[in-house]
Amino acid sequence: MSYSQLFKFNLDTGVIRMNDAASTIYGDLNKLGPAENYMDEIYEIIHQIRLFDDFGMDEIKVLCHYLRCYAAPRHYPLLKEGDRGDFMVLILTGSAEVRVNIPGLGNEKIAELLPGSTVGETSMIDGEPRFITCIATAPTDFAVLSRDSLNQILMQAPRLGNKLLLTLLQLLSARLREAYNPVQTAVV
Amino acid sequence: MSYSQLFKFNLDTGVIRMNDAASTIYGDLNKLGPAENYMDEIYEIIHQIRLFDDFGMDEIKVLCHYLRCYAAPRHYPLLKEGDRGDFMVLILTGSAEVRVNIPGLGNEKIAELLPGSTVGETSMIDGEPRFITCIATAPTDFAVLSRDSLNQILMQAPRLGNKLLLTLLQLLSARLREAYNPVQTAVV
Repeated sequence: MSYSQLFKFNLDTGVIRMNDAASTIYGDLNKLGPAENYMDEIYEIIHQIRLFDDFGMDEIKVLCHYLRCYAAPRHYPLLKEGDRGDFMVLILTGSAEVRVNIPGLGNEKIAELLPGSTVGETSMIDGEPRFITCIATAPTDFAVLSRDSLNQILMQAPRLGNKLLLTLLQLLSARLREAYNPVQTAVV
Repeated sequence: MSYSQLFKFNLDTGVIRMNDAASTIYGDLNKLGPAENYMDEIYEIIHQIRLFDDFGMDEIKVLCHYLRCYAAPRHYPLLKEGDRGDFMVLILTGSAEVRVNIPGLGNEKIAELLPGSTVGETSMIDGEPRFITCIATAPTDFAVLSRDSLNQILMQAPRLGNKLLLTLLQLLSARLREAYNPVQTAVV
């Protein structure tokens, strides 16, 4: 198992040390701006996700402070296999599909994303290139949480940070179970 | 995607709410007792793992307070697919292999575990039954971290808890990448 050399803890703060300059992402897309502008909508969406059940309005408010929102047209690649990218995506409206190249099986659709779905957590965490491709299948608004923002949440709002880390752990656990038991295309 | 109904956050503390009674585990094995008795050895082992690079001796000392150690003979099943179990395992000496039933492929060996390897994080996190089986391939000493202990660390040593959650996220990210790109049997 090779772990990323890029990804190191900061001994003093317990947060991820940034080795990459903050990337300019989605420069070609219509920026919807800070997520605070859409807080009611985001709260409505996030609150319907069981994983975020226990996040209160105040916590969603803080979380929104660290999110940036974008609007993508149908067929836009939200994430591309092989790309570097230290952020994850939360689908707000529209839909997307996730595809992966599986040795011996070829390019497989492994998930459909609907509002409330997340994608791209792995690269946010380990700093390694994407291993999936995610394409919008309808005009799609989405929010971005970067590794830098996650670090800031851990430092500035440690209790919320801990809840977020536990939520991410549950997401990855569910993904791992699906990977070994792909009974059907997951809706995540 | 079905998330565990058992697994819920505690709104106030941001830690996992326990729905299962603490389980009596490895009742048939020779208990080596609290990990504090083996702290120097555990520090030596953990310190060689890149993921734990930034854990200092003081932090390992605190971590050891929450671990319990056991000795297993060769062929002993450390974890069994389908079993419930809210803990993860850290191999201290010896070795083990991890097998999983993959639909269409059958029972596959997916990893060899050596001292410093961990296994069973997913069930610790989501409270769902094990999806892998792990068998000792030599006489093996191992340490156990339960969900209950993780909760206690998050409450009593939040900074260490944070580092531990980030380490678990990296472990699961690496597992997920391997699941979709099993170029060789992983040594984890």
